[in-house]
Amino acid sequence: MTASERIPVAILGATGSVGQRFIQLLADHPWFRVAEVVASDRSAGKTYGEAAGWRLETLLPDDIAAMTVKNLGADLTSRLVFSGLDSSVAGDAEDDYANRGCAVISNARNHRMDADVPLLIPEVNASHVDAIATQQQRFRNHGYIVTNPNCSVMGLAIALAPLEKEFGVEAVHTTTMQAISGAGYAGVASYAILDNVIPYIGGGEEDKIEAEPRKILGSWTNGRFEDAPLKISAQVNRVPVIDGHLMTASVKLRGRAPLDDVRRCLESFTGEPQRLGLPSAPRHPIHYIDAQDRPQPRLDRDREGGMAVSVGRLRACPLLDFRMVVLVHNTIRGAAGAAILNAELLHSRGLLP
Amino acid sequence: MTASERIPVAILGATGSVGQRFIQLLADHPWFRVAEVVASDRSAGKTYGEAAGWRLETLLPDDIAAMTVKNLGADLTSRLVFSGLDSSVAGDAEDDYANRGCAVISNARNHRMDADVPLLIPEVNASHVDAIATQQQRFRNHGYIVTNPNCSVMGLAIALAPLEKEFGVEAVHTTTMQAISGAGYAGVASYAILDNVIPYIGGGEEDKIEAEPRKILGSWTNGRFEDAPLKISAQVNRVPVIDGHLMTASVKLRGRAPLDDVRRCLESFTGEPQRLGLPSAPRHPIHYIDAQDRPQPRLDRDREGGMAVSVGRLRACPLLDFRMVVLVHNTIRGAAGAAILNAELLHSRGLLP
Amino acid sequence: MTASERIPVAILGATGSVGQRFIQLLADHPWFRVAEVVASDRSAGKTYGEAAGWRLETLLPDDIAAMTVKNLGADLTSRLVFSGLDSSVAGDAEDDYANRGCAVISNARNHRMDADVPLLIPEVNASHVDAIATQQQRFRNHGYIVTNPNCSVMGLAIALAPLEKEFGVEAVHTTTMQAISGAGYAGVASYAILDNVIPYIGGGEEDKIEAEPRKILGSWTNGRFEDAPLKISAQVNRVPVIDGHLMTASVKLRGRAPLDDVRRCLESFTGEPQRLGLPSAPRHPIHYIDAQDRPQPRLDRDREGGMAVSVGRLRACPLLDFRMVVLVHNTIRGAAGAAILNAELLHSRGLLP
Amino acid sequence: MTASERIPVAILGATGSVGQRFIQLLADHPWFRVAEVVASDRSAGKTYGEAAGWRLETLLPDDIAAMTVKNLGADLTSRLVFSGLDSSVAGDAEDDYANRGCAVISNARNHRMDADVPLLIPEVNASHVDAIATQQQRFRNHGYIVTNPNCSVMGLAIALAPLEKEFGVEAVHTTTMQAISGAGYAGVASYAILDNVIPYIGGGEEDKIEAEPRKILGSWTNGRFEDAPLKISAQVNRVPVIDGHLMTASVKLRGRAPLDDVRRCLESFTGEPQRLGLPSAPRHPIHYIDAQDRPQPRLDRDREGGMAVSVGRLRACPLLDFRMVVLVHNTIRGAAGAAILNAELLHSRGLLP
Repeated sequence: MTASERIPVAILGATGSVGQRFIQLLADHPWFRVAEVVASDRSAGKTYGEAAGWRLETLLPDDIAAMTVKNLGADLTSRLVFSGLDSSVAGDAEDDYANRGCAVISNARNHRMDADVPLLIPEVNASHVDAIATQQQRFRNHGYIVTNPNCSVMGLAIALAPLEKEFGVEAVHTTTMQAISGAGYAGVASYAILDNVIPYIGGGEEDKIEAEPRKILGSWTNGRFEDAPLKISAQVNRVPVIDGHLMTASVKLRGRAPLDDVRRCLESFTGEPQRLGLPSAPRHPIHYIDAQDRPQPRLDRDREGGMAVSVGRLRACPLLDFRMVVLVHNTIRGAAGAAILNAELLHSRGLLP
Repeated sequence: MTASERIPVAILGATGSVGQRFIQLLADHPWFRVAEVVASDRSAGKTYGEAAGWRLETLLPDDIAAMTVKNLGADLTSRLVFSGLDSSVAGDAEDDYANRGCAVISNARNHRMDADVPLLIPEVNASHVDAIATQQQRFRNHGYIVTNPNCSVMGLAIALAPLEKEFGVEAVHTTTMQAISGAGYAGVASYAILDNVIPYIGGGEEDKIEAEPRKILGSWTNGRFEDAPLKISAQVNRVPVIDGHLMTASVKLRGRAPLDDVRRCLESFTGEPQRLGLPSAPRHPIHYIDAQDRPQPRLDRDREGGMAVSVGRLRACPLLDFRMVVLVHNTIRGAAGAAILNAELLHSRGLLP
Repeated sequence: MTASERIPVAILGATGSVGQRFIQLLADHPWFRVAEVVASDRSAGKTYGEAAGWRLETLLPDDIAAMTVKNLGADLTSRLVFSGLDSSVAGDAEDDYANRGCAVISNARNHRMDADVPLLIPEVNASHVDAIATQQQRFRNHGYIVTNPNCSVMGLAIALAPLEKEFGVEAVHTTTMQAISGAGYAGVASYAILDNVIPYIGGGEEDKIEAEPRKILGSWTNGRFEDAPLKISAQVNRVPVIDGHLMTASVKLRGRAPLDDVRRCLESFTGEPQRLGLPSAPRHPIHYIDAQDRPQPRLDRDREGGMAVSVGRLRACPLLDFRMVVLVHNTIRGAAGAAILNAELLHSRGLLP
Repeated sequence: MTASERIPVAILGATGSVGQRFIQLLADHPWFRVAEVVASDRSAGKTYGEAAGWRLETLLPDDIAAMTVKNLGADLTSRLVFSGLDSSVAGDAEDDYANRGCAVISNARNHRMDADVPLLIPEVNASHVDAIATQQQRFRNHGYIVTNPNCSVMGLAIALAPLEKEFGVEAVHTTTMQAISGAGYAGVASYAILDNVIPYIGGGEEDKIEAEPRKILGSWTNGRFEDAPLKISAQVNRVPVIDGHLMTASVKLRGRAPLDDVRRCLESFTGEPQRLGLPSAPRHPIHYIDAQDRPQPRLDRDREGGMAVSVGRLRACPLLDFRMVVLVHNTIRGAAGAAILNAELLHSRGLLP
């Protein structure tokens, strides 16, 4: 596919921290090319370079820097739209573009729990894309919305998915230690977090972690989602780490399983993106690391370009069955990269407009 | 009590991070005065000022700076000995000084689980001092050893103590986020922890957190310790925080208790040090903080000079009964301050040699 | 002086980071008591506890927490007004209260360089208070404004003052490494500064450091300020430190002086606040620290309650005469504490309304 | 060149932090392949995987992990030897291998100032390789040593080189803010540097920064090095940053030059590695960044794989001619990458054994 044949895409919320990751990850994408950048009125009309205040470690491509930012609500030529919008505006804006016939691939939380919107992780619940047909009955012009989970949920759900499938998961206690990038560029003041931990994250973070995995690990049957029956208790913390959400988990399975079987199950996990060879798919969705003090955010967050989830410290639990430590790159696998992988699955299924 | 009437004390391991806290906290103590500083052969013979490389925020008192460091094993004139020794040498050295008739008040882990050594928190299990008489039958010259718990255990045990007494505690899941000072001055390399979390702490940290509270909350009856029956699952992490161990806890009680009763129980907790008015006793051993994002290490670790444990975010748990967040200053209440409070209790009971 | 006899003061900008320091430092002040807290319309009408979101390590006093915040511009009963206002509003507001007859003791930059406003450091230029009489001719009701310098300037000016007096200072190269608290609570995003240094501070920081010391070290003669002739080149940086501005300085004197004389000159520095025994005065305005790796922000910023400036590493310079390292607690000696000391000088001189 | 045709190299000090960077940077090198890993007796005999405790963000290649570590002093088959040895052992060990006929490309400081050893930066002083012939008269078997400068010097010397050539540099004041990785893995304790800056670095850091650029910018004529006449005053600091040394510089030129000419001179700088197209050469040795708050360590250290030096904030100085901010990746361009580029130059000149 030559550059000009690549599918044009628009980025909603392009100047924010998730939006910048979209730009970064799509810079050399084999199937998609950034054709339109969309942001709030404050940025609209400026060049992306001026408006973005680029804050990532890689250089902003010149052609993107020169693009004029469109305002949210503007007509778009792209039919594929990635949304990194803040939840304060994402709900209506995404509905709006779906009604104009776009496939809206969103990282926002607003529509995640909607009755016919897939909360999609291609390795885990690719069959949930069947819900798109139902959406297309309520949106005009065959548009639809597909969402990816909360950044912490992404790590937990990928680690639990093979266990749910092979053994059944009954209960999970998890405590998260989340990176500051999860709150957006200006989300956490340095005065608040240096030499500190904040045992709270707003926006219903704990509720999301307790609810979303049930939908993700559940099924789409007879035109509705049915939740998986597992119960989760989540306690969240913000720590002075740039990128990478780390979490401890204590898990109770429905059946019995020796630790060796649990480990083999995690290590051998693979899914639809791996079978299809999707461009952003990690070779192994789960990296089990055989060292007593891993995974660690700074050392392991970038495995497979930030698209692999790392797991370690599998050991028995005095109360439930076993414990483990899980790490996910919150702004790549847990946000922009997740949405791009979702779009790749949809493209390979012929579901993009 | 005039300065010269204060009880002379020796500090073992005086140059290390716990040793420096002993010096700092005893600087203006009404009952005790530092008379001897003891360290390894490397430091012995130097002045304390030279040997210590003082690293705390308050100034090293001139008289202490001028003291000559004695080597471990040297004869001491003090009968009250505080031990901040590393566990690699603490075991034998503490036995040795106990056999010479000293009261050895130790922060090291070596003797904590010994069959007749109190693992003492004066607010929680002051009656455990009765075990001293048993020790004095095996040590010569009426010496004995009293220990304080692991730094994380201190926070957890104080928070659980009133609940155990009033409702009974059946099970606890806890994940700790521990400050780097807990590993001693050079324990954690900056290259290892900046922009990072390490989900592991050596020396059997998780085992200690799972075992010590059972002894602490248990009883000394008929010449032996009987453990409390609670079960704990602990997962530990090192975070880039200077001082203050924060931990999440999910708790199952034996009986039922509304959250309001749990909170009242925590807030009204008081113990022997408060009744006796011991010099280092906090007015309130537990500070319940009524804010959704507290306690936080940097903001709350110094409450009551670092001797109060802070608790917050009490709320129901989807799996067990309730959840909370606990904070303890690991090198004050969780180490040197704990030992000093122990010595104060012993003095008030007339148990010091 | 009993509590009720203490002089009532108002704090402008009471909810901001400097405002909170005013509250903290005045909590047990022997001469002043906080009687009124003033902030923007957003906070006005709320209790201070609600409005402030208290962020310091000490507890907010209950009586202050219960005060109702007045809006900026409201009539005040206090005649002594401390201003921690942001520079976007400080200029007019301070003029306004001066015109109502208040002594406005300001930390804001707006009036620092005004032709008749003292830029006061009581140890350095106490005689500049003579300019107040000139001000009282233009302000109605005998009100006036006294300012303290920029937080970095405070460290530099105190370190240079005895040298200027004894030897004359000709030129200074300085590079600052400034704490994040200098930018206010939300001033520096954690995503911007973790694992990073930012070689820039807005608001004309370098210009201030190059200009203010000239006024401070100059004289008030014949009804006007005359600048000291020294030249300064300042390069500023923001570093991931909570409190404490550290700076390197290379200095050229007018005369020749051996390093020993320079050191003696620094160590023996004392001034009006020490002679008068003002409540907030450090015993020694400059602590010379005799260790090759000091001063350090975390270890030395709190000397004398944060009111002493620390100096170390005095050594020859291959280009100018000598080099040194200077540290100042930016929100205490460099802001709120500076203003309080200014007010104490004015009170002792009988210049308060 | 196929993999088997690549030149075999040995890494001395392979398990240390510079050694690990050598392994990482040589993983896919087109000309060189790591054939031998050498370390102290403590590591010798173990596999590299066991001995190294790999601490970089990229994965350790399996074939390197499986290599057996040789002890320092062992016979080597490689004739090209990279040294990341600690200075406590580098001096003799490097002499030893040179005497055995190896080209020793060293990052250690021991031989940098030797009378016939090039202190080589290929963009700056490629002609200094002529000194090798002199060395080969004293070392047996035609071996020799080539060194690269101190990590901070690398940034400064590259930024000064084009200015020295075009205008002449007379004097430089510099203050560095250096990353903790520069001290090796365990070099800086986290307790020492979190929420702190340390205004001192051991091992004669300031002396090196003042001396090495004079040799680098000087000439090799008539069988001896002649220093460039510039004078430097350096003040060093350790800051809580993982990688990337940032420094402020104030510069006096011999001639006059408008700022625009200085900038053009910096931006257009290019050298031998660029002309030869050496594999590790950055396209532009200097990236001038046109933003008021750059360069910053975290955002700019990885430009061109960490091999480009970033410069920004060029502006007039009230005392000398102009000021600027310089950034260098201390363990890539300032250490392992520097040595590899040196070896590439030697290979292209036909000077490798």
